[in-house]
Amino acid sequence: MNNTFGTYITLTLFGESHGPEIGCVVDGLEPGLRVDETYIAHRLSLRRPQSHFSTARVEPDPFRVVSGVWQGRTTGTPLCILISNTDARPGDYMNLANTPRPGHADYTGFVKYRGFADPRGGGHFSGRLTAPLVAAGAIFQAALRERGITICTHISRCAGIADRPFGNLAEDSDFLENAAFPVLDQDSGERMKAAILAVAQAGDSAGGVLETAVFGLPAGLGAPWFDTVEGVLSHVLFSIPAVKGVEFGDGFALAELRGSQANDAFRMEAGRVVAETNHNGGVNGGITNGMPLIFRTVVKPTPSIAAPQRTVNLSTKSNAEITIEGRHDPCIVPRARAVQDAVTAFVLLDLLKGI
Amino acid sequence: MNNTFGTYITLTLFGESHGPEIGCVVDGLEPGLRVDETYIAHRLSLRRPQSHFSTARVEPDPFRVVSGVWQGRTTGTPLCILISNTDARPGDYMNLANTPRPGHADYTGFVKYRGFADPRGGGHFSGRLTAPLVAAGAIFQAALRERGITICTHISRCAGIADRPFGNLAEDSDFLENAAFPVLDQDSGERMKAAILAVAQAGDSAGGVLETAVFGLPAGLGAPWFDTVEGVLSHVLFSIPAVKGVEFGDGFALAELRGSQANDAFRMEAGRVVAETNHNGGVNGGITNGMPLIFRTVVKPTPSIAAPQRTVNLSTKSNAEITIEGRHDPCIVPRARAVQDAVTAFVLLDLLKGI
Amino acid sequence: MNNTFGTYITLTLFGESHGPEIGCVVDGLEPGLRVDETYIAHRLSLRRPQSHFSTARVEPDPFRVVSGVWQGRTTGTPLCILISNTDARPGDYMNLANTPRPGHADYTGFVKYRGFADPRGGGHFSGRLTAPLVAAGAIFQAALRERGITICTHISRCAGIADRPFGNLAEDSDFLENAAFPVLDQDSGERMKAAILAVAQAGDSAGGVLETAVFGLPAGLGAPWFDTVEGVLSHVLFSIPAVKGVEFGDGFALAELRGSQANDAFRMEAGRVVAETNHNGGVNGGITNGMPLIFRTVVKPTPSIAAPQRTVNLSTKSNAEITIEGRHDPCIVPRARAVQDAVTAFVLLDLLKGI
Amino acid sequence: MNNTFGTYITLTLFGESHGPEIGCVVDGLEPGLRVDETYIAHRLSLRRPQSHFSTARVEPDPFRVVSGVWQGRTTGTPLCILISNTDARPGDYMNLANTPRPGHADYTGFVKYRGFADPRGGGHFSGRLTAPLVAAGAIFQAALRERGITICTHISRCAGIADRPFGNLAEDSDFLENAAFPVLDQDSGERMKAAILAVAQAGDSAGGVLETAVFGLPAGLGAPWFDTVEGVLSHVLFSIPAVKGVEFGDGFALAELRGSQANDAFRMEAGRVVAETNHNGGVNGGITNGMPLIFRTVVKPTPSIAAPQRTVNLSTKSNAEITIEGRHDPCIVPRARAVQDAVTAFVLLDLLKGI
Repeated sequence: MNNTFGTYITLTLFGESHGPEIGCVVDGLEPGLRVDETYIAHRLSLRRPQSHFSTARVEPDPFRVVSGVWQGRTTGTPLCILISNTDARPGDYMNLANTPRPGHADYTGFVKYRGFADPRGGGHFSGRLTAPLVAAGAIFQAALRERGITICTHISRCAGIADRPFGNLAEDSDFLENAAFPVLDQDSGERMKAAILAVAQAGDSAGGVLETAVFGLPAGLGAPWFDTVEGVLSHVLFSIPAVKGVEFGDGFALAELRGSQANDAFRMEAGRVVAETNHNGGVNGGITNGMPLIFRTVVKPTPSIAAPQRTVNLSTKSNAEITIEGRHDPCIVPRARAVQDAVTAFVLLDLLKGI
Repeated sequence: MNNTFGTYITLTLFGESHGPEIGCVVDGLEPGLRVDETYIAHRLSLRRPQSHFSTARVEPDPFRVVSGVWQGRTTGTPLCILISNTDARPGDYMNLANTPRPGHADYTGFVKYRGFADPRGGGHFSGRLTAPLVAAGAIFQAALRERGITICTHISRCAGIADRPFGNLAEDSDFLENAAFPVLDQDSGERMKAAILAVAQAGDSAGGVLETAVFGLPAGLGAPWFDTVEGVLSHVLFSIPAVKGVEFGDGFALAELRGSQANDAFRMEAGRVVAETNHNGGVNGGITNGMPLIFRTVVKPTPSIAAPQRTVNLSTKSNAEITIEGRHDPCIVPRARAVQDAVTAFVLLDLLKGI
Repeated sequence: MNNTFGTYITLTLFGESHGPEIGCVVDGLEPGLRVDETYIAHRLSLRRPQSHFSTARVEPDPFRVVSGVWQGRTTGTPLCILISNTDARPGDYMNLANTPRPGHADYTGFVKYRGFADPRGGGHFSGRLTAPLVAAGAIFQAALRERGITICTHISRCAGIADRPFGNLAEDSDFLENAAFPVLDQDSGERMKAAILAVAQAGDSAGGVLETAVFGLPAGLGAPWFDTVEGVLSHVLFSIPAVKGVEFGDGFALAELRGSQANDAFRMEAGRVVAETNHNGGVNGGITNGMPLIFRTVVKPTPSIAAPQRTVNLSTKSNAEITIEGRHDPCIVPRARAVQDAVTAFVLLDLLKGI
Repeated sequence: MNNTFGTYITLTLFGESHGPEIGCVVDGLEPGLRVDETYIAHRLSLRRPQSHFSTARVEPDPFRVVSGVWQGRTTGTPLCILISNTDARPGDYMNLANTPRPGHADYTGFVKYRGFADPRGGGHFSGRLTAPLVAAGAIFQAALRERGITICTHISRCAGIADRPFGNLAEDSDFLENAAFPVLDQDSGERMKAAILAVAQAGDSAGGVLETAVFGLPAGLGAPWFDTVEGVLSHVLFSIPAVKGVEFGDGFALAELRGSQANDAFRMEAGRVVAETNHNGGVNGGITNGMPLIFRTVVKPTPSIAAPQRTVNLSTKSNAEITIEGRHDPCIVPRARAVQDAVTAFVLLDLLKGI
């Protein structure tokens, strides 16, 4: 089920970058959850391109909840959110239809859909489709908050600059919730912005690493063998455009540790089992252990760059060169943060329902 | 569906480390695929503990195909493979029932199954369950070979030692198919073995990184938004015990590149579209592009170590110390290779059926 | 997945009777299928209430295909159809919120959704939701026609009057495709209409039996054990409001036959295996055998009637009486025909993809 | 997922009539459910052929629970039940491989599996596969009993003779639980047996109708639009070999009623909402309303009969005649009762978990 995800709660995503509307349908939500349109708008604003770091395309994201909500609360029947595409300028992309952009889905989409896909602006593959994910994610995040569960994501690295690691999660998450540029150390943040600007001025693009923490989670989420927390989360995290890797806890650094260093010893604390360290990122055997869930994704540099690139012409089956006009982000890492929060919230709400 | 994976082809895994039998059921296989029991036995041998690098438990893996095969070929109806547990010594683990081993699933399994889980040897969480995966994987790998698709995995890093990167994939895969210790550079291999032995003698354990290459794949496998090749593969790769991270192509190193460095330009080669480089690991927009699929997993050091560790007593709700007796591997990275090949083969065969 | 159906192709339904829009998302369609909006409008017209036999509510069904179609053909990515609710008169139903209508989903919906469901006009349970099914069904039916497969449904019995059985399926299906009142024998049709009118004038409602034939199907659709053609079709047929039974071939009459009467002998005909009779309705062992697929559903009389009925007040937990105002059909059997064709087309297209 | 059924709990069925073992895997069961092997054996005995009414094949059904149970209770991990095929006499059926038996799955299975299916005794299609369903069903039924929910099935009609309808369900279910020939009226039962014997002596076979009642169910099971109780149950009921129709409540008789006759008025009774009648069989809008769930299936006469039948030779593509030797039931209706109870229990336990 390519565009539907989830087990007990399902999310179905539809639309194209330059179609009239894009949206998603969420089924299986508990009845009675509050749906706060102001909070949805806030989360959408965190995903929106900001100033000179991002694409100049204005995306006001005028969303409508057309089903599944009655008097401000979920009904328990499918919730559909629609977002209109008001600022589409299809002309910019039409010349790319036959010359796939390197690093994009143009070529693979052409093969998969045998030339029938909507070629405008990436069509169904467009990052624009993450807007409904973020809108629905606001509902999921609010529902988790009601249960004492908080999700936050910061830019761990970007354009060669590192942020400080997570510290006090309650404080860090409060800060990130309203941070347009989600870094914890402001000095690092300024240097990152400067580095991104420099990349942009060079007509190039930058990647980075997003780190997410979730706290307040109960132990017991996830299941052997295939629906591990790590497996289910990574499945959907790789749907965030440009994500090419996912790691939990110490991640790839665990390759260099010994078991005596990597194991997280348990102890009782106020009648509750806790781990003394968190090298495993809150997951043992694929199931949450009650410690903060910690993971990172790597976001590759945006493939749309100003320089001419070598490609092929799919009609003439010959080599070609392409120069990408239109609007594009030098770095989508800041915006991807809102998407990472959203899909994480979805997975956790679904896993909680399965307990 | 916790213990069932797949869309067109499904695999259901069952059993406990010390139960009478473990096994799996595979449904949706094309009728007429050859089932070669010799090849199944060969792949199981690659997973089996070897000499002093691994647990002393002897696992002859006497498997039986009890359904879905008639006269040496798949029938198209569910194929069930059973493996008997002949060398179970349940006593070794029974004393651990109340004192969860750090880094293992003991505590999270206790919470999830409310104390009803089989406590012997990790029960359903045991790495023993990977044996049926490898057995079934042999059938999948053979079916892929018939279609010109080859999967191979080597130890990229282990215990601080690096193997050389993949070179000529046809040669490397031929070599790895029969390599008991799967490294490409023999000198590095000897140093790795020595390093693992040293770790073992210190009563400790080591982790590593497994790198997989798949060649001969058509373009067009995987689908937006949620069933990307990366997402589906990572979902199941995290089921391999101790895997804590997955990355495709250049993976986390992409964070440090510019778009101009990370994009893989296209060109025509013998009438076929190829990419000049492979930073994206054979995947664009979540769909294979016909280049080799390349990914790596990190395998954390085995949590079972000789040293006493701090834990809790779940009955008395007090702090405790545990010393793990029994048999355990100082490093499961070499054995995990066969599992990684197997689950990769499963995912690809399933995605191919969906084309 | 309550509101999503299908294996290879999935259909997700959303909306409420009096919400702004209702719709569905279809994922997994082959790219390149023609989408003919005129044919969609035609099929919607067959579902629309006609004259005095049906509710007086005017439903122009202004549909929009907002994704998944480009230049008149499916793209292969999710296809979303939206239909606006232009003639909603919520006031009519609001007084029923606490006094569930007998025979409707009001009470069970109240229990299931704990009072949070949209109470207007049946909310998500409304027969109005069948409009997007019929709209999408037009695309499925056209795709099947391209493959030589035709679906047609007539009213086999209604209000005590029987239609003639199917005869020449090619002729019968041509006739039914454009028949506003779908009966094969016109004299029976007139008597049915008169009987329905008489029931309506008595403030009561009538039920009936719909019989469907599908011809041109290949042998081999459906699979043991659980995804039999009969099982998958009946699963979705029971979603048609008021359907309370499904039978294939001779159906319940088979209870009275002997094996020697019920078996359909095979013979070769023009190099093709055919059955001499069709007591099994084109299905053996849950799989199509190439003969016409024949089944019937029973549609109970519409629960909305004019007479006062005994019910309960869910707020005061006391007995109550209810009189249903608003608009309601004396008989939905003629309109349900279009829905039965649509969901049948969906199931068959999905099963064909799985071959 | 052809051979896997269920949403929260899944059941996967495997095996062939004459393979070494058949079985099923059940995943998602709550941990801590009692597993009583005596009760499993009892339920299997109700499915076993009895005396002269059924096939002479002796099926001792020696089952083994090989996973998912520890100390007599479910662990919450996959439960696998294996049953050995001890009395296989493959020779009886081998001559049928090329000449499909009318009314059986031989021809459709041949087409679907392109000639690779195990031809012995119906292979994977064999009614023998219902034994693991009944064994697992015993666990489901016991779990439901713990929650106050009872399922019982009687032969409503068979070989032209009718049983009395359900009366006091508590008494009727107690009686049926131990009735080898499940009829409520003993005189009717004797006449049925005599009628079946007469049919058998004529070398022919008989069908019938099975009626099931479930009481103690809460309101709120099932969900719109597609996972109605009726839809989900019928999906799996059609997996029972020979079932060709399913109806709920008054079923097909509803076609002849008026709305004023078919609606079930509500009233308060001891603080609980009840319906005064039960024409809808305990289901409104696809969701249980707390009244007894009532449904019937029609079981066609066993296709295996003594008389020679016309068929085709699939090798030579010519007409042929077949005489079925081997052992066969003149009437499987009494045995199918245990299967109907079992699959009903499965569906209800799954739906309860989804509440």
